[in-house]
Amino acid sequence: MDSKTRYQILFNKINQYNSGEKGITRIAYTNEEQTCTHAFMRMCKVENLDIRMDQCGNVIARREGRMKELPPVVMGSHLDTVYQGGQYDGVVGVTAALEVIKRLNEKSIVTDHPIEIISFACEESSRFGVSTVGSKAMAGLIDKEKYRYLKDRDGITMEKAFSLCALDFNSIDEASRVNEEFKAFFELHVEQGPVLKNNNKKIGIVTGIAAPVRFQLKIIGKASHSGTTPMNMRQDALLGAAEIALELEKAAKRELEYETVATVGVIDIHSGAMNVVPGEVEIKIDIRSTSMESRQRVVNHLFESILAVKRNRQVEIVSEEISSEEPILLSSGLMDTLKNICIEKDLSFQLMQSGAGHDAMNMTKLCRVGLIFVPSEDGLSHHPDEYTELDDILNGIDVLEDVVLHYSKLE
Amino acid sequence: MDSKTRYQILFNKINQYNSGEKGITRIAYTNEEQTCTHAFMRMCKVENLDIRMDQCGNVIARREGRMKELPPVVMGSHLDTVYQGGQYDGVVGVTAALEVIKRLNEKSIVTDHPIEIISFACEESSRFGVSTVGSKAMAGLIDKEKYRYLKDRDGITMEKAFSLCALDFNSIDEASRVNEEFKAFFELHVEQGPVLKNNNKKIGIVTGIAAPVRFQLKIIGKASHSGTTPMNMRQDALLGAAEIALELEKAAKRELEYETVATVGVIDIHSGAMNVVPGEVEIKIDIRSTSMESRQRVVNHLFESILAVKRNRQVEIVSEEISSEEPILLSSGLMDTLKNICIEKDLSFQLMQSGAGHDAMNMTKLCRVGLIFVPSEDGLSHHPDEYTELDDILNGIDVLEDVVLHYSKLE
Repeated sequence: MDSKTRYQILFNKINQYNSGEKGITRIAYTNEEQTCTHAFMRMCKVENLDIRMDQCGNVIARREGRMKELPPVVMGSHLDTVYQGGQYDGVVGVTAALEVIKRLNEKSIVTDHPIEIISFACEESSRFGVSTVGSKAMAGLIDKEKYRYLKDRDGITMEKAFSLCALDFNSIDEASRVNEEFKAFFELHVEQGPVLKNNNKKIGIVTGIAAPVRFQLKIIGKASHSGTTPMNMRQDALLGAAEIALELEKAAKRELEYETVATVGVIDIHSGAMNVVPGEVEIKIDIRSTSMESRQRVVNHLFESILAVKRNRQVEIVSEEISSEEPILLSSGLMDTLKNICIEKDLSFQLMQSGAGHDAMNMTKLCRVGLIFVPSEDGLSHHPDEYTELDDILNGIDVLEDVVLHYSKLE
Repeated sequence: MDSKTRYQILFNKINQYNSGEKGITRIAYTNEEQTCTHAFMRMCKVENLDIRMDQCGNVIARREGRMKELPPVVMGSHLDTVYQGGQYDGVVGVTAALEVIKRLNEKSIVTDHPIEIISFACEESSRFGVSTVGSKAMAGLIDKEKYRYLKDRDGITMEKAFSLCALDFNSIDEASRVNEEFKAFFELHVEQGPVLKNNNKKIGIVTGIAAPVRFQLKIIGKASHSGTTPMNMRQDALLGAAEIALELEKAAKRELEYETVATVGVIDIHSGAMNVVPGEVEIKIDIRSTSMESRQRVVNHLFESILAVKRNRQVEIVSEEISSEEPILLSSGLMDTLKNICIEKDLSFQLMQSGAGHDAMNMTKLCRVGLIFVPSEDGLSHHPDEYTELDDILNGIDVLEDVVLHYSKLE
């Protein structure tokens, strides 16, 4: 069987595990996800890997190298999905890693360093509102007492969900591998955006992971009758919000070279009606960049525009920072190797940031990290119609194979 | 008892009838509203008026003049309210009319023309989604077979509500008075806006009633990941809506001299989330003026801005006209008389439009109409905190008394 057919079968097998009708729903620590994870473990077993599940539900499948004591080269991603998600997000990285192992086995290659596949638990925030739980646990980044009591939409706590998977939440710290050594970590993932498709490139070599700063703004004007309030006697909260949203776009567009993005994704009018001038509007803002300086320039412009709207429209504006995370820069050494591999294989590529979070982000606490993107059709992500061409995935697997072979050689 | 104390007692009596906890809830054709209406009829009886309730639930209370066959001078407004409304809207006009009668009786004045008070049924649209039902019936403007089956939020039809008030919906046409003659109709009403207060005027003489044209716009861009979609590859529906809202404001502000107003009162993002670029947004627009030309200029600018947004943002925009009503101009002859009365009484006044609908609007089908506004504190309307100073109401009653006396004299 050729690699392409073999990979397609593997990919389809994983996507059998689905509790939804539209797209794929395989939520972390549910029966579907656990059955899928254990099926994957058995597939690894067939390839003679040593397999174990750690105390957080991460699967670690290891192929020994010539020298047992050398730090492993690791590949991984996740098998859980959002509600009504697609078939590719996460799955591509885990199945690609197993396909790489199959190729090595087929060619009877013995590497110097051991090689590991990790299928991370609970990457998506859909169930408990927190993302990349498995890789956080591995990197020693879990706030145990906070996570223990997080609830899903049915009121089940994370602790209870662990117990239903025969995992002991109290032992979650033991999933940490901060005292181990790793050679490098690689994740292959679908882009989840339109950049590679639009630029007609086959491989994205990720330079860093943009982190969001998020704000909630409450714009408080004055509700009044839309027929009886003259235009010059209004304190229209919605128009204030509209101005801020457009200023935010302007500021982010000026930072295009830094790939900085800014979005108003939520807007709510407090008791909106067609015959009422909006008195109170709430908006939620997300600003991301791998450059803290660039991100800060957009934040500064946001607050200048807030001041201007307060002054010009006689509205009150209450702003709250919901969260602020630090962007993560990836290893330039690994990037160079990835570039050379792409050139060698005559695969078109580009350097780019990742606007979404990934397990790779947490793995930077343990070792050098390389993140490889393949194109997403139409940029669709977290959507039943999410799609990446099989040939594009196979290009990614080729690159992953080469880079893993490169770093599993004794230097 | 002086007029002020007497009026305050009457006003308070009417507002005893209330089914809500917050503000006043006295919904058309409910027990509270019917009890209130019948109490008002008995108060009219005490003043020796001929009283009757017509087939639509309108109360007509008549004081005969010297010459029975002359057309009556009519005053009126309504006693029903919105849910959690205020004490003034409608009530001021009905109670003022009765206070005028009390003054004439006190002074034993016999007028040439008869004088009528009308308390119109179902002025507010809160129950059945249609407003000024009583005055529409009187002006022969009811679409009987459409209205019959309109339902309130409990599923009760208008026909059934009539029957619960011992009214026969089948006879509603008999409430029409299109074949009678009237000398003039006057309505005293609270402004429901901030204009008189802001301009420090005591009396508003209404020149016309602005009618709304209403649109619903669906802006269809493309939902995408807020982190992974570069600013120059977005089709953000919310930003398109923001531009349209601000352009609409700009266009209406240019028409300030025509008192034209335009409002986006409703905005909805289809599945909005902080990490998603808005793919679909719906807005609802209300544009009002007494000048059709001015209103049309704003509508034209709206459609120009829709075209510009479609072009610049590669979004689709579907627009639908929800309703379009014709503005109504009031009698300039009556306005002149009202102006003279204000000057005589040394009451500050201004000419202004009404941005809200009133029974007076339908009465223009039957005769000349004068609409008199008194100031609304803070412009608040349809709100528990709606407030007009008693002295301001008494100014309005003085004007109403004088204008009714003026027109009830044989010319």
